[in-house]
Amino acid sequence: MLKKRLLTPGPTEVPPDTLAEMAKPVFHHRTKEYQDLFRQVTEGLQYVFQTKNDCLTLCASGTGAMEAAVVNALGPGDKAVAVIGGKFGERWGEICKTNGNEVIALDIEWGHAPTPAQIEALLRKDPKIAAVFITLCETSTGAATDVQAIGNVVKNYDALLVVDGISGVGALPMKTDEWHVDLLVVGSQKALMMPPGLAFITVSPKAWAKISRTPSRSYYFNLPKAKKSLEDFDTPYTPAVTLVRGLKNSLDMIRAEGIENVWRRHAVMAQAARAAVKAMGLEGFAAAPSDAVTTVKLPAGIDGNAVPKKLASEHGVTLMGGQEKLKGKIVRIAHMGYMDKFDIITAIAALELVLKKLGANITLGSGVAAAEEVFYKNNM
Amino acid sequence: MLKKRLLTPGPTEVPPDTLAEMAKPVFHHRTKEYQDLFRQVTEGLQYVFQTKNDCLTLCASGTGAMEAAVVNALGPGDKAVAVIGGKFGERWGEICKTNGNEVIALDIEWGHAPTPAQIEALLRKDPKIAAVFITLCETSTGAATDVQAIGNVVKNYDALLVVDGISGVGALPMKTDEWHVDLLVVGSQKALMMPPGLAFITVSPKAWAKISRTPSRSYYFNLPKAKKSLEDFDTPYTPAVTLVRGLKNSLDMIRAEGIENVWRRHAVMAQAARAAVKAMGLEGFAAAPSDAVTTVKLPAGIDGNAVPKKLASEHGVTLMGGQEKLKGKIVRIAHMGYMDKFDIITAIAALELVLKKLGANITLGSGVAAAEEVFYKNNM
Repeated sequence: MLKKRLLTPGPTEVPPDTLAEMAKPVFHHRTKEYQDLFRQVTEGLQYVFQTKNDCLTLCASGTGAMEAAVVNALGPGDKAVAVIGGKFGERWGEICKTNGNEVIALDIEWGHAPTPAQIEALLRKDPKIAAVFITLCETSTGAATDVQAIGNVVKNYDALLVVDGISGVGALPMKTDEWHVDLLVVGSQKALMMPPGLAFITVSPKAWAKISRTPSRSYYFNLPKAKKSLEDFDTPYTPAVTLVRGLKNSLDMIRAEGIENVWRRHAVMAQAARAAVKAMGLEGFAAAPSDAVTTVKLPAGIDGNAVPKKLASEHGVTLMGGQEKLKGKIVRIAHMGYMDKFDIITAIAALELVLKKLGANITLGSGVAAAEEVFYKNNM
Repeated sequence: MLKKRLLTPGPTEVPPDTLAEMAKPVFHHRTKEYQDLFRQVTEGLQYVFQTKNDCLTLCASGTGAMEAAVVNALGPGDKAVAVIGGKFGERWGEICKTNGNEVIALDIEWGHAPTPAQIEALLRKDPKIAAVFITLCETSTGAATDVQAIGNVVKNYDALLVVDGISGVGALPMKTDEWHVDLLVVGSQKALMMPPGLAFITVSPKAWAKISRTPSRSYYFNLPKAKKSLEDFDTPYTPAVTLVRGLKNSLDMIRAEGIENVWRRHAVMAQAARAAVKAMGLEGFAAAPSDAVTTVKLPAGIDGNAVPKKLASEHGVTLMGGQEKLKGKIVRIAHMGYMDKFDIITAIAALELVLKKLGANITLGSGVAAAEEVFYKNNM
């Protein structure tokens, strides 16, 4: 028997009760039943995102909502800053270019985060910048961005602050309104404890003002139309009803735990993972580590690409390796969503077993012991 | 106990085994397990669509795939013909306009279908037309278009034939390759016996040639990128894995029944529904009736908007009324997807009960008897 465990930074494991909700019969979406469901889901999302802004639900994966942000907020001739410190920052830049916009790239060493001063310098230099695109948790490197600090800068300019929160929201603190985030993009399959298939975008009054001045460039990703439908807790096009029903259950779980407790659980899991990595004699990759995913440099002399393969085939544990230039060089331990201390301990133990077998100098149990210490100290 | 029955032209009821598949744990999509699943699903879709063309799966609802067709096939300055004989034909026109393209509207009386001669006249007049957009089954009116006949015309021109098959494919015959359909758009929540959330698009070699000459205008709906990923049975962005797994089951069911038998089942259900309507002393709305949905003119003197409401509240049966200018004037009996003779008989019986209660001159059982006759004659 090989029990399977999905410990990747998206998709993540989905609570069994949420899966069961999605197996219930399909019902029609132009009904009071759906409106009631969608109202509760929308309110639940606003709670998790800590916002009173409009929160729109799209039938798309996260990248679809990223494109929705760009095509609604940036008109012809608009310039934008994109912070590029990994694969997902690169994606912001590519989407802006596809939309015909000039991109001022703020290139950051992979694993590092942009500083508010860097953003401010760019905004001062060119007051015509229409938007600043950042990434809450750059899953490809495991780095987190201080959205609060950057929000305190961008709020003083005409530019909109657009945050890819796909991999981070629900794991890391995100106070959309307090931090002056104008457009926040989130996906269902990360810390929201859902399968992929839904994406979300919140829109501040400042963002609506800009969107209203911008000609609509997409029919499907038309945010003003989605806002109008939301008045009746409806969507312009057929929503993914089974996914929305599942989401209700996962959001109810987050609400029952309390969002601050959810953030704390993730922070402690992340602390435990980092302590374990250190105790194993390994090094984290990210200079600005995120509490949603821990990236671990693999020891020299072992076949890095073999690590995720052996974890899956011999232990049933799915951990992701590195992407693009980090391929074969790191392994990523996710701590987001439906996870607790024993999932982290499992990930560490599996990694210890595989690394030792591949010839690395690992003392079995060393990482796990350090993780347990952290959980113990935090009464978890 | 009010048993609920969803008899609407999308979403439609989903087989319990398909629902159960979607309740299985989530797994990662960058794995051999997913590639195997996605290969089988892609082959199953090609079978249902009767095509050897590339078949791309998008995480979106049907309208997203319609936009994908437009933004990939129509470049700046391209002109297109859109056949507009209902709400979904209008949508083709609106998407083309949003994309900045000039639309030559072929306006058709609602409930009617375009003729090949009308299309040919437009193509002759303006050989620069880049694409012709038609609707296989115009769900808003219940009219079907003769795609085969129009395909035989358009194939002789440079224009692409783009078909919205969202509501029809899987219910009505669709021979994509034989009928020279260049881009076929399909949604999951109609005759494919799935919840909403996935959309599909097939691309002919003629369409790829045009797409390769057209600058990419969407990052998310980038068909060449999706084609490249499909070589490894992968997608550019995170796919909706639980829905794809459910789809495998529904496609297997279609394959086991045989697509010709599926088409025949729908044709007989449609014939029975039409015979029932006539026997009840009512009239069909569509002059070119589709075998996927039967639209029924409501008798004068009754409150048309009360019909779907009473069907739902008193009988648990969800049938849709009319949209836009047909609101309150028609009711739509769907026969698509996971439906058999007794679902049609249920819809007719419920309609008889409600119409009689609302004061219409209806002999209870008259419609059902006529439907039974049709099923009996067809050995169903």
